[in-house]
Amino acid sequence: MAKAGIMGAGSWGTALALLLHKNGHDVAVWSINEEEVKMLSTKREHESKLPGVKIPDDMEFTTDMESVIRGKDFLVLAVPSPFTRSTARSMKPFVAQGQMIVDVAKGIEETTLMTLSQQIEEEIPQADVAVLSGPSHAEEVGRGLPTSVVIGARTKETAEYLQGMFMSEVFRVYTSPDMLGMELGGSLKNVIALAAGIADGLGYGDNTKAALITRGIAEIARLGVKMGGAIESFTGLTGIGDLIVTCASQHSRNRRAGYLIGQGMSMQEAMDEVKMVVEGVYSTKAAVKLGEKYGVALPIIDEVNKVLFENKDPRTAVNELMLRDSKAEHTALPWKE
Amino acid sequence: MAKAGIMGAGSWGTALALLLHKNGHDVAVWSINEEEVKMLSTKREHESKLPGVKIPDDMEFTTDMESVIRGKDFLVLAVPSPFTRSTARSMKPFVAQGQMIVDVAKGIEETTLMTLSQQIEEEIPQADVAVLSGPSHAEEVGRGLPTSVVIGARTKETAEYLQGMFMSEVFRVYTSPDMLGMELGGSLKNVIALAAGIADGLGYGDNTKAALITRGIAEIARLGVKMGGAIESFTGLTGIGDLIVTCASQHSRNRRAGYLIGQGMSMQEAMDEVKMVVEGVYSTKAAVKLGEKYGVALPIIDEVNKVLFENKDPRTAVNELMLRDSKAEHTALPWKE
Repeated sequence: MAKAGIMGAGSWGTALALLLHKNGHDVAVWSINEEEVKMLSTKREHESKLPGVKIPDDMEFTTDMESVIRGKDFLVLAVPSPFTRSTARSMKPFVAQGQMIVDVAKGIEETTLMTLSQQIEEEIPQADVAVLSGPSHAEEVGRGLPTSVVIGARTKETAEYLQGMFMSEVFRVYTSPDMLGMELGGSLKNVIALAAGIADGLGYGDNTKAALITRGIAEIARLGVKMGGAIESFTGLTGIGDLIVTCASQHSRNRRAGYLIGQGMSMQEAMDEVKMVVEGVYSTKAAVKLGEKYGVALPIIDEVNKVLFENKDPRTAVNELMLRDSKAEHTALPWKE
Repeated sequence: MAKAGIMGAGSWGTALALLLHKNGHDVAVWSINEEEVKMLSTKREHESKLPGVKIPDDMEFTTDMESVIRGKDFLVLAVPSPFTRSTARSMKPFVAQGQMIVDVAKGIEETTLMTLSQQIEEEIPQADVAVLSGPSHAEEVGRGLPTSVVIGARTKETAEYLQGMFMSEVFRVYTSPDMLGMELGGSLKNVIALAAGIADGLGYGDNTKAALITRGIAEIARLGVKMGGAIESFTGLTGIGDLIVTCASQHSRNRRAGYLIGQGMSMQEAMDEVKMVVEGVYSTKAAVKLGEKYGVALPIIDEVNKVLFENKDPRTAVNELMLRDSKAEHTALPWKE
């Protein structure tokens, strides 16, 4: 039995806390939100985010960050990406040398173009930072439905230790040394989910969506590999796998926002309607900057950017993607003479 | 304007005939089924397979094979895979030296383990055989929804000629020299679609399905690359793209048969219920043989095979897939020392 501290009591943080508890570990959960802590401590259920899933009585919820960090074998950082840096900064004084922190959120900071693990490492230099990613709706993990994810870490030892902590009959955990590729795939896929949502909103079919997903991951992979990520992370669970689950979901905020834009709303109207952080909108800006910085053409992402920020008509954008010069699917494959 | 002969008046043959006609080509369609020819010639609509899509008056339907082949710039072979070899054999006497034949069906012959293009080349040695594949529900192509596919051929000239024939505002065509990889991906994906259907039938969620799709294409790619296919065909439109569209569809016979098996039916009961050819059932047998022949481990395909032919309980099969030894996602990626 290990001791785990979970930072963040949203749907993903709570689902992972429950999983670790079921695996026999001692789990404490921190939230910045006093009301949320009170609600979870008394109702023993996250009614809005994981309805119907019972929280065991010996799982502690608190707003006292220090008590959740000190003495823990590992920490899980599960706050939304815009709050990752600030949360890490608050955590720093309490984190021990070499203490493991598993980041489970996704995003790229628009100003610095840094991934979340890079931000955490910058804020907490003494931490041993790892990431967990893959196709994993929190609600389904909360309900115990079979799920496969990947843990990326700097060392094999850390990855395998964490793999042992999370692995269960219904939660299959692979390991990977490619944190960068995993994080780029996980963040940039939200832009493609917006595009897929736009196609759905326009009334286009499964053919269009499958083509956008496939060409989209190829585009992300070109950029990610140029940045130093491994191609396998983009063709694996943390790339195409995560993208598939996001694009299939009726619950994904990114897909939903895209759908509303495809139906005729402006980006702002769609964000207002969805009410929560639409990560893909921020990732789009970061992706465009990364494409310029690394000299990689990103046709789908560029069109999403124009729809979001330049009021381009979504139908025109999709049609222009279809009409680009005819060419080989993979220009590197040779023809016989 | 070119002259095209379409062999087969099912949903895919008819949809491609309509597309080529709309592109300005002269199109004649052959079917072995006299009743179907009469129905299409008089009603000018394929009521059962492409309802609501009007067929233009100058598109000819006939049971006279010779007239549809002679003098045509290219032929499209759109009969179901079990009839590909026999149809090719009947076509042989009428096919000119170097006449192009685009195969648009998918399958692997269980006895010979040959792809469809290999069978056609064996039966009609004088033909210039090409293939068309990708995420493309016939109904959506018939309705003019944006679709992306790949044409594979032995030479760049043939591929680009055919690309020019099929390309339209709503039908984007890429080219590829890797016919083998395209065909293996297109056939073997049906086994994974069965697995995804089984997971759906068991009541598992999007996480499980996305993991099966992702790990499934990796498995197919390992086999296909060992056989000489290019990895790009498996990570592209003809591999993961086609698999996504099949697994997302309520109409896919493979997914549907899997669903019924997941709900508790035997393979035979599911086949009887679906009523049409469930390609994946045959492909499973061929895939298992190919795995043995080429010495490639195929854990998902093996479990599907056991469920189909050895009455293995599907829930046990999925659970065993989840519980395999924990390991790295991609064993080739190196860890830092």
